[in-house]
Amino acid sequence: MTMDFEYSPKAKDLQNRLLAFMDEAVYPAEEVYEEQMRSSGDPHFYPPIIEDLKSQARSRGLWNLFLPHKTEWTEGLSNLDYAPLAEISGRSHLAPEAINCAAPDTGNMEILTMFGTEEQKEEWLRPLLHGEIRSCFSMTEPAVASSDASNIECSITRDGDEYVINGRKWWSSGASSSRCKVAIVMGKTDPKASPYQQQSMILVPLDTPGVKLIRDLTVFGYTDREGHGEIHYDNVRVPISNLLGEEGSGFAIAQARLGPGRIHHTMRSIGAAERALALMCKRARSRVAFGKTLAEQGTIQTWIADSRIEIDQARLLTLYAAWLMDTVGNKGARTEVSEIKVVAPNVALRVIDRAIQVYGGAGVSEDTPLARMYAGQRTLRLADGPDEVHRMTIARRELRKHE
Amino acid sequence: MTMDFEYSPKAKDLQNRLLAFMDEAVYPAEEVYEEQMRSSGDPHFYPPIIEDLKSQARSRGLWNLFLPHKTEWTEGLSNLDYAPLAEISGRSHLAPEAINCAAPDTGNMEILTMFGTEEQKEEWLRPLLHGEIRSCFSMTEPAVASSDASNIECSITRDGDEYVINGRKWWSSGASSSRCKVAIVMGKTDPKASPYQQQSMILVPLDTPGVKLIRDLTVFGYTDREGHGEIHYDNVRVPISNLLGEEGSGFAIAQARLGPGRIHHTMRSIGAAERALALMCKRARSRVAFGKTLAEQGTIQTWIADSRIEIDQARLLTLYAAWLMDTVGNKGARTEVSEIKVVAPNVALRVIDRAIQVYGGAGVSEDTPLARMYAGQRTLRLADGPDEVHRMTIARRELRKHE
Amino acid sequence: MTMDFEYSPKAKDLQNRLLAFMDEAVYPAEEVYEEQMRSSGDPHFYPPIIEDLKSQARSRGLWNLFLPHKTEWTEGLSNLDYAPLAEISGRSHLAPEAINCAAPDTGNMEILTMFGTEEQKEEWLRPLLHGEIRSCFSMTEPAVASSDASNIECSITRDGDEYVINGRKWWSSGASSSRCKVAIVMGKTDPKASPYQQQSMILVPLDTPGVKLIRDLTVFGYTDREGHGEIHYDNVRVPISNLLGEEGSGFAIAQARLGPGRIHHTMRSIGAAERALALMCKRARSRVAFGKTLAEQGTIQTWIADSRIEIDQARLLTLYAAWLMDTVGNKGARTEVSEIKVVAPNVALRVIDRAIQVYGGAGVSEDTPLARMYAGQRTLRLADGPDEVHRMTIARRELRKHE
Amino acid sequence: MTMDFEYSPKAKDLQNRLLAFMDEAVYPAEEVYEEQMRSSGDPHFYPPIIEDLKSQARSRGLWNLFLPHKTEWTEGLSNLDYAPLAEISGRSHLAPEAINCAAPDTGNMEILTMFGTEEQKEEWLRPLLHGEIRSCFSMTEPAVASSDASNIECSITRDGDEYVINGRKWWSSGASSSRCKVAIVMGKTDPKASPYQQQSMILVPLDTPGVKLIRDLTVFGYTDREGHGEIHYDNVRVPISNLLGEEGSGFAIAQARLGPGRIHHTMRSIGAAERALALMCKRARSRVAFGKTLAEQGTIQTWIADSRIEIDQARLLTLYAAWLMDTVGNKGARTEVSEIKVVAPNVALRVIDRAIQVYGGAGVSEDTPLARMYAGQRTLRLADGPDEVHRMTIARRELRKHE
Repeated sequence: MTMDFEYSPKAKDLQNRLLAFMDEAVYPAEEVYEEQMRSSGDPHFYPPIIEDLKSQARSRGLWNLFLPHKTEWTEGLSNLDYAPLAEISGRSHLAPEAINCAAPDTGNMEILTMFGTEEQKEEWLRPLLHGEIRSCFSMTEPAVASSDASNIECSITRDGDEYVINGRKWWSSGASSSRCKVAIVMGKTDPKASPYQQQSMILVPLDTPGVKLIRDLTVFGYTDREGHGEIHYDNVRVPISNLLGEEGSGFAIAQARLGPGRIHHTMRSIGAAERALALMCKRARSRVAFGKTLAEQGTIQTWIADSRIEIDQARLLTLYAAWLMDTVGNKGARTEVSEIKVVAPNVALRVIDRAIQVYGGAGVSEDTPLARMYAGQRTLRLADGPDEVHRMTIARRELRKHE
Repeated sequence: MTMDFEYSPKAKDLQNRLLAFMDEAVYPAEEVYEEQMRSSGDPHFYPPIIEDLKSQARSRGLWNLFLPHKTEWTEGLSNLDYAPLAEISGRSHLAPEAINCAAPDTGNMEILTMFGTEEQKEEWLRPLLHGEIRSCFSMTEPAVASSDASNIECSITRDGDEYVINGRKWWSSGASSSRCKVAIVMGKTDPKASPYQQQSMILVPLDTPGVKLIRDLTVFGYTDREGHGEIHYDNVRVPISNLLGEEGSGFAIAQARLGPGRIHHTMRSIGAAERALALMCKRARSRVAFGKTLAEQGTIQTWIADSRIEIDQARLLTLYAAWLMDTVGNKGARTEVSEIKVVAPNVALRVIDRAIQVYGGAGVSEDTPLARMYAGQRTLRLADGPDEVHRMTIARRELRKHE
Repeated sequence: MTMDFEYSPKAKDLQNRLLAFMDEAVYPAEEVYEEQMRSSGDPHFYPPIIEDLKSQARSRGLWNLFLPHKTEWTEGLSNLDYAPLAEISGRSHLAPEAINCAAPDTGNMEILTMFGTEEQKEEWLRPLLHGEIRSCFSMTEPAVASSDASNIECSITRDGDEYVINGRKWWSSGASSSRCKVAIVMGKTDPKASPYQQQSMILVPLDTPGVKLIRDLTVFGYTDREGHGEIHYDNVRVPISNLLGEEGSGFAIAQARLGPGRIHHTMRSIGAAERALALMCKRARSRVAFGKTLAEQGTIQTWIADSRIEIDQARLLTLYAAWLMDTVGNKGARTEVSEIKVVAPNVALRVIDRAIQVYGGAGVSEDTPLARMYAGQRTLRLADGPDEVHRMTIARRELRKHE
Repeated sequence: MTMDFEYSPKAKDLQNRLLAFMDEAVYPAEEVYEEQMRSSGDPHFYPPIIEDLKSQARSRGLWNLFLPHKTEWTEGLSNLDYAPLAEISGRSHLAPEAINCAAPDTGNMEILTMFGTEEQKEEWLRPLLHGEIRSCFSMTEPAVASSDASNIECSITRDGDEYVINGRKWWSSGASSSRCKVAIVMGKTDPKASPYQQQSMILVPLDTPGVKLIRDLTVFGYTDREGHGEIHYDNVRVPISNLLGEEGSGFAIAQARLGPGRIHHTMRSIGAAERALALMCKRARSRVAFGKTLAEQGTIQTWIADSRIEIDQARLLTLYAAWLMDTVGNKGARTEVSEIKVVAPNVALRVIDRAIQVYGGAGVSEDTPLARMYAGQRTLRLADGPDEVHRMTIARRELRKHE
């Protein structure tokens, strides 16, 4: 083993195939998608073009690439090999679902692979891996700061052969789609246990009585197709066999879920940043003010240079974190995962914001994808732990070296 | 005369009356407004509550406060006395229209007052001052960097007793409302004149044949009630009496229009920032994470302190610019007006962004006004000249001192 | 009273006289000063040119301008009238001492005026006001975070008719000069009292046995002429009549001392920033790279514009704080004083750093005053309370509004 | 070849040996060094401890590690293997010279290796490689912006068998040492050639008549031991055999020189940043204010986390640039080299500045190495091309992708 920054032959092959898929299928589909959505009149419509893309991706061998470990269900691809694919998929909002690598399904599939019973896998993992259904993840609660897991108020109470779930969750992303069939819900089975053993996760089919989708949250004015649901779990009863793992393992499962998921998000953020930088350059070359193209003006050049520097650094740090996860495990990579979780959305936001400024009015409107990308990246400074919690984690580990 | 930071008795009286109006009428109206808009199903609906607020404002003597000079039409209020009122009105999106001090009508009314013929004033200024109609301002063009006025492509060509207007404009804010009756259009009457004498402004009733509202632009994902119109002026013919001022005076009128308008925008930005800071503090006091309220955590305290510092500085600089306009005129205040034009939206964006972070998911959604405020403020780094053009202006003036 | 940004006639007259003094005497003296210092070979030499400047300043009526209140000892000048004079004096390191308005004497003279006995005033205030001696202020201790006054370890113990002082102090600025005759020392007379009543201040002539000047601290490689002393007070005995105010009043006196002192520092920081901006502009106009002067390059223009914006804001905020001190008292201005304490050195550092970058190698060397100015301003983010403590103060006050 | 972030076995072995050398020899030598310098009374003294360290380093096989290519003179070590050694050596100002890897000798030795004649190598490269003499590099000129090579004014004129050199250079680092025996001087042999073929480099023994060391520049207030010389080359005559490479190749040689040199500087900057972060953590753990250690306070934790994130990113980007240089050559790595040239000193400055703030007064004084490190890093934003020139380079390459 020796330091090398060249992607593996396998990774390069997949990248080439994914890039071809993007050029030949995904980008051309974007306009079709817009048209199908518009004509449906339903912001939560499932447009046929997605199904087309999915079938193409499957036939190109670009399917379920996100699962790191070889199982009976999937071939497995290392985090390091998957990361650049996630980046490429981040350039178009259609790509992640097209290759069945979209959040929150990826994380849900991963924990089902790792912690699910055979029965649970047959019922939920199989159709998710086949892209037949979608799923959501109900952890965050409106009433409390959910980045501190000890704050969770949702209760999961044993009652005979059933668990009874009561709680209010929001940002259950994906829940507004009619194709979303199951939620993984985090709640407390034992509020008196030690802080990180109070929580459990449980599988809740969305058609269970008592599951009430209250509303769909907007993000900076945008209604996302899959939606961000607020769900009231009101005396919801499921069989005890729906528990994921053991009672009290919820926090540990959440941690296991988050490592690779953060790599995915981060690399997609970098893909988004690259797209914004490319748009910025194109605009800067064509737009003229005060007798020069914007590309010839020092201020714009500074923005382009800083964007390139920030993106390159964020990518390398993410690849390093992915490599650590592959070599020393998710736990050994925790500091670096927190680092990229802070870095990548902030880089993407800065780059997108500069691109908006270069586009002027077009930048904030629907004439470019920039404002929508901005809105999406902005949520990532909050989702899966706000920046501040990750910084606290990083600082504590750094300080520990000097004990 | 001697330095004094106390508002004048007149300003304080108006502030108190406006604050009472906000508390007693405007804030309570916000919910009514949401309900009336929702039930109308039309994003460009004109809800009755606005008319109620307008009539209340009139009876409280809070009407048309923005006009700096005493004329036969208005009493006149100095920029310095009006500025804090603009700040207060910036705290609610309902307030500016309620007191008939909303952009772009204010700027349009001001230039009609200054440059309009008696006939033009009777036809357009009177109903605008009475709040009976609204207006829009068509300067920015999609095809060119419009911050450089020499780029303007819209043509205004004399043909007998008429001018013929051809051009495509966008960000004609207000144009989507059925109450918008007239546009002030900037175009070139003489493309061969010296760069700043090529342009003229002309009054175009929106029902003139050839005026085509192409579409309404969104800002981030928001559709504004008054809308941001893209308008195609396609062989539009108006009588020569519709010209505002003289041929070739368009650039000069634009400059005259912008001074006070920037004070208004800036002070409303500061009002928005104050509201975001207040929301941030309230949230920080009530939200608990890791055993402490957010208000007790150093990082949040830093955000609050920096917000207070930035807001206080931006307000003082704006008041100073207003005072300069009152004492040495718009031209003498140009550097300072450029300074506040850069400062205020950037301060507001930073404060709002911090508030979003403190609110978590609620911050980006419709549960707080923050994301919408962010979108609005973000456009102000582009409207009326992007930050970069103002910085260039400031730098040139500074460098001139060392010639 | 009504808002007005014009300096008072008295302030303008003093400014004009001080500006004339700068042009006619201070700036020309800078070279003489360098030569006298160099030829002395002693970094703590008192060069005759200072005494010349002092006598000129006195004859021009530019002497002891800093004292805000009229007493039998001084005429008094409001903080608001003095502030712009402090700014002007900040442009040259010779000016503050030349007009007898140099720290730490100013603060020491002020508390002697307010809290000193007649005897103390005769002995120390009189020669300080006459510029015959200098003084230092011993509060900060090397061993503890002294921004938290409860950490102070220096003891002041009553023993019969004497107090015995034991402690180690540093950053006792001015102590390295042979002209420094007295220290005001902060220590604890009663460590068991409530946190803010444990401390007292006491006058210690520097020739008292047990006063040991351990060393003189450098600042970024620079040895300041008056020096920054580390002093060991080792069983130092002074008569009880040397106590300033009452036992337990040390913290309160420190607070009283800091308000105006912070205005002075802040305005001098702004003066330094203005000088750096002027130097940057001059260099940018004359230096050519890649076919254009630096002044024509967008990046440099951005720096100039941002510097102008930041300076103008910082000045206005400081003037506002000064006005508050004059009108509602030091206590009522505490938030604003903390705000300017944070803002001004940070603005000055940013402006100076940009100027250094424009000067290239000359910027970090002795060929410009920039590096030395940087070092001086950098200490002001620590002296009289670090930025972080002031931010905490501001945040707490802001949060209190929402209780 | 496949992506791997593990250092090579060779690199790890060298790192371990260098770390041992640091612990066993370098750090303990720092105090001895200070004492030898102090007692010499000469800021340019060559203290015996350096010679001790050099002999130890040689016997440990830690000598001349910087040369990337295997030649008859050196074994060669890849940039990627050397980079982490440069980082380690950056932690102590004694280490680079101790292992004969100090600037500007490294760059000079490299171009002598690549472009020197056998005679030049015997005369200058041999004693440099043996650590017997030192050298300086005379490129920058006080009168012009030297980052634009076409500005160079120094002339190198052929006169029979000699070249005559006339020009004024500064920041000829190392020239103040009596051990510095030769300068490599950049000047114009043909001012009429195309812009990048006007320059040549020539070897000038410092004892040649006409070489006048005018003065030694300070950096902030520091006098560096090797000094930063301003040299007047006044009708200096050297034989034509002293030309390095061919006439007109000066710009190309400068480019060849800069690639690896920038890696070295960057990695040493990162070493400095790591040291500052470690110091910050130690201080934060031990210092108490307002009832908590600084390490427990959110603001300080944010600084520590951001420092860790910034350092990790800068290191990975530098390693990537080093790998590119090794695999595709210096030219193929130019964008990335410009990126790290901007990133590393800025990261180091931010981290050091935070550490200073945590140390309070000790941070700006001689009680910590921080202020001196700050001064050193600050010059690196100017040396070898200011940030702005590198940003311009990066932007142009990025824009070229969209032609």
